[in-house]
Amino acid sequence: MAKLSTRHLLGIKDLNRQDIELIFETADEFKSVLNRPIKKVPSLRDVTIANIFFENSTRTRLSFELAEKRLSADVVNFAASSSSVSKGETLIDTVNNILAMKVDMVVMRHPYAGAGIFLSKHVRAQIVNAGDGAHEHPTQALLDAFSIREKYGDVAGRKVAIVGDILHSRVALSNILCLKQLGAEVMVCGPTTLIPKYIGALGVKVEHELLKALNWCDVANMLRIQLERQDIKYFPSLREYSMLYGLNKQILDSLDKEITIMHPGPINRGVEITSDVADSKQSIILDQVENGVAIRMAVLYLLAGQTQ
Amino acid sequence: MAKLSTRHLLGIKDLNRQDIELIFETADEFKSVLNRPIKKVPSLRDVTIANIFFENSTRTRLSFELAEKRLSADVVNFAASSSSVSKGETLIDTVNNILAMKVDMVVMRHPYAGAGIFLSKHVRAQIVNAGDGAHEHPTQALLDAFSIREKYGDVAGRKVAIVGDILHSRVALSNILCLKQLGAEVMVCGPTTLIPKYIGALGVKVEHELLKALNWCDVANMLRIQLERQDIKYFPSLREYSMLYGLNKQILDSLDKEITIMHPGPINRGVEITSDVADSKQSIILDQVENGVAIRMAVLYLLAGQTQ
Amino acid sequence: MAKLSTRHLLGIKDLNRQDIELIFETADEFKSVLNRPIKKVPSLRDVTIANIFFENSTRTRLSFELAEKRLSADVVNFAASSSSVSKGETLIDTVNNILAMKVDMVVMRHPYAGAGIFLSKHVRAQIVNAGDGAHEHPTQALLDAFSIREKYGDVAGRKVAIVGDILHSRVALSNILCLKQLGAEVMVCGPTTLIPKYIGALGVKVEHELLKALNWCDVANMLRIQLERQDIKYFPSLREYSMLYGLNKQILDSLDKEITIMHPGPINRGVEITSDVADSKQSIILDQVENGVAIRMAVLYLLAGQTQ
Repeated sequence: MAKLSTRHLLGIKDLNRQDIELIFETADEFKSVLNRPIKKVPSLRDVTIANIFFENSTRTRLSFELAEKRLSADVVNFAASSSSVSKGETLIDTVNNILAMKVDMVVMRHPYAGAGIFLSKHVRAQIVNAGDGAHEHPTQALLDAFSIREKYGDVAGRKVAIVGDILHSRVALSNILCLKQLGAEVMVCGPTTLIPKYIGALGVKVEHELLKALNWCDVANMLRIQLERQDIKYFPSLREYSMLYGLNKQILDSLDKEITIMHPGPINRGVEITSDVADSKQSIILDQVENGVAIRMAVLYLLAGQTQ
Repeated sequence: MAKLSTRHLLGIKDLNRQDIELIFETADEFKSVLNRPIKKVPSLRDVTIANIFFENSTRTRLSFELAEKRLSADVVNFAASSSSVSKGETLIDTVNNILAMKVDMVVMRHPYAGAGIFLSKHVRAQIVNAGDGAHEHPTQALLDAFSIREKYGDVAGRKVAIVGDILHSRVALSNILCLKQLGAEVMVCGPTTLIPKYIGALGVKVEHELLKALNWCDVANMLRIQLERQDIKYFPSLREYSMLYGLNKQILDSLDKEITIMHPGPINRGVEITSDVADSKQSIILDQVENGVAIRMAVLYLLAGQTQ
Repeated sequence: MAKLSTRHLLGIKDLNRQDIELIFETADEFKSVLNRPIKKVPSLRDVTIANIFFENSTRTRLSFELAEKRLSADVVNFAASSSSVSKGETLIDTVNNILAMKVDMVVMRHPYAGAGIFLSKHVRAQIVNAGDGAHEHPTQALLDAFSIREKYGDVAGRKVAIVGDILHSRVALSNILCLKQLGAEVMVCGPTTLIPKYIGALGVKVEHELLKALNWCDVANMLRIQLERQDIKYFPSLREYSMLYGLNKQILDSLDKEITIMHPGPINRGVEITSDVADSKQSIILDQVENGVAIRMAVLYLLAGQTQ
């Protein structure tokens, strides 16, 4: 069996182009499984996976859980609020304890950037990063690129604009790394206050006007404004943001070509995009969600294969 | 296979008499399964069901989950507090996302009346309403009627008094519709402040004195006072309610016939009924709980059969 | 099949020496299973177990859940915060309702001492106590003694010092009972304010100086200070406690023999023990966690066998 060059999936920067292509080919197979009446495969029978979420999540946690169950893995979940973490235990102790119970793989979301990397150096388990602070969210980037490949046949040469709060977004960073690795051209677009200074070093274009970005791109990935994160002080205000960077059907129809609209979800309808855009034929937002399960099945399956 | 006349179970008003009888006959079979050492059947292998609870619930959530597991379905749970809902996502987006992950059926409890109906018009999934605000709670009504049928052989012609807070109760409305559909006589009993004005239109008797209601009925279904709902201002007070409408053993023994006592749970012992009533031979409260699993297995099984 | 002398596991005091030895021999077998690639056995297929946790817990809940899943049982979880308990229902009603849904066994953690005993007298289910207030935590004591037996070949004749907050600890009481039953010598060590007056009656030595306790023992079980329990007023303060009863590597190396270090977890690193002690070769803390799953499999397996 072909193998990944890494034991963990901590970030896109762990993956070379062959790795990503192997994940996509494996996801192709699992996606066809998901469209059969019998959606389960016995691949990970006798593998136990712990989903450890130190931050709230519906879609990512559910997507991983469904991926695991369809691979026939045994699944245990725990959320930070109900955990020993509130009893002052260290992250390493928490995870080591779970591993001592013979858990094979840990899928972790954590509010701090680098939590997964730190952990991978101190515990024996295989770690899958399901989002670490504003750092990386590799399976999201993989499913986004996979959805572009599905739409256009190939990612190489495509022009992708990532629009919104680039500064606080783990989705943006992972997407840039993944798309560049696969040969796409990437532009980030947003107000200067939400674009990090270093961004040019990643080889991406920077644009502050939405219309210019849209006229340039084949695909616009409209990031969400994270209303629930109290620690982010938005400037411009939400109302200003929505006026300057919100995408509505009128703008979309004014372009001289048909671009594809993506969104990592959950959507703030009327903020980043209006409903008529979210639900338009050009939107592949629900395809992204569907592809998420297939991509996560592929990642877990390939990582489990690394241990032999 | 016999089929229901509906793709969803949003309320009792979706069901005709044949539907209810089909559910009961199917539940008879599943109830016999639940009393075997081997309680599982492979019927819904490869069906994935999401239990989406926007309100707290122990018994209903557990009852559905056990029903699903005994049908060998794959089950994913999510509770509102830990969900994207707190991130401002719309209900339709939340459910559409879950469906895009290839979930076949959604069991939903929601604080707003009509949430399930709304959803069923906007998403492709089959919806089972596990309680929507003060509107309907159809599986509770089915298990209540099934328990009366089990006790008396038939529901038709039975006199059922529903006692308590009719105004805020989804159990009351669903019970009235179900019992009338099956040919029972129904009376509601409670203080004028807790009985809605329209109730006469449903073809039920109204009575304000508990003793008269008890002397009339074969079965008294003692609704619970929802102490936990801060939005309900009770008048009369709890103490007055309990004095006027609380059922104790002395009252029960004073009747000239042996009536059957039901309660949808959880019981506030000493408020709606005293312990000696709840635990008496006349009480079929735990039968209701047991029948709940069989009824929910029947509903899920029959709805799954609709999709072919 | 050999049988336990009890239908429930409410506390170590329910077990005689033969029971404990039977649990250990059964756990030996399950531990070997856990180290095979295929970690599941079909023993409890068709047994449904409800984990009812009225207090937060990561490791104990997860350890039971993994034990149950590896025995192929059907598992339902519920936590108090999302339960009917907040609706004013009594404990007996809550559990009776769960049982009416054809649940075979209840694993319960509860903040009040004796909750499991109370329940076992009023409901039909088999109860496993997963910690009841400051009373007992029998599976923890079993896994602790099992870990000592694994290290030394036998528990009889070993000298075990239990260090820390003996007064508020369910782990201490269950450990004392279990170790005495198996013929170990037991000493408790801590400040006078944290050692209950009755303790001499249990046949244990009492020592207030850590160094003397360490010089005496073969095994030191360093209990955790329960920082999260607001109802415990610690005297001495945490800082004083740590200075007087905290174990560091310097102290450990100053002893004239190599003692074994245990801790029930979660560790407050730097309070009860420093990191270099927790992670030293003398520490068997992670073995305790691993053995926890095997011990819980053994207990559940043997109790399930009682019902025939």
